[in-house]
Amino acid sequence: MTDEAKMKFNQQGLLPAIVQDEETGEILMLAYMNQEALTRTLETRRTWFYSRSRKAMWMKGESSGHVQEVREVLLDCDADTLLVKVVQTGAACHMGYRSCFFRKLNPDGTSEVIAEKIFDPNQVYGKD
Amino acid sequence: MTDEAKMKFNQQGLLPAIVQDEETGEILMLAYMNQEALTRTLETRRTWFYSRSRKAMWMKGESSGHVQEVREVLLDCDADTLLVKVVQTGAACHMGYRSCFFRKLNPDGTSEVIAEKIFDPNQVYGKD
Repeated sequence: MTDEAKMKFNQQGLLPAIVQDEETGEILMLAYMNQEALTRTLETRRTWFYSRSRKAMWMKGESSGHVQEVREVLLDCDADTLLVKVVQTGAACHMGYRSCFFRKLNPDGTSEVIAEKIFDPNQVYGKD
Repeated sequence: MTDEAKMKFNQQGLLPAIVQDEETGEILMLAYMNQEALTRTLETRRTWFYSRSRKAMWMKGESSGHVQEVREVLLDCDADTLLVKVVQTGAACHMGYRSCFFRKLNPDGTSEVIAEKIFDPNQVYGKD
């Protein structure tokens, strides 16, 4: 059955979008989309987000070349979260890791890095 | 290296928490944790969340029996999103699906259900 999807954007007009590697199932990152970023994502098959700090839209990979090719966009039961399945070029994390989730939380409140960097951010993004 | 983790809770004191099936990699749901829900999750190895609509903490499975056994909690690079890897009993979605992400978004703005229900919500939660 096909229905018109009515998304429930939050008070800032945004939806959290989980990005998952379609092939391995690895969670790569979470960022936020407004209506325009979602429309561009569906139309261009690249991931577009809205940066809350920079107050601007951005395409993943526009600086780094680490683009995400969109294979599928899913909506959850409450229509307030997106799941975007992608093919990732390079790495998702601006800090040099394949995934942004490279730290494990311990019960005592400490965290430890459990992944290895696969690129040098200074080389990819420049030092500024 | 082990460091004290400093989470960046949002203005409502919450962090989005992605819940993933540890074995299959399937994304089951996204809900929100406050500091207390996170502490309980790490200590009890069950998932606890904060409901924004009910303004109360809840444990996944407390009504349905569909509990989530926590295997690992990861933190992202910006320290503002959690990824919780679990073993899911039954199903994650209160609407009867294994995953809350059972709808696919089409480029024309419509959505379609791409999964099948594995339980009857009326039987599990009652009709009220």
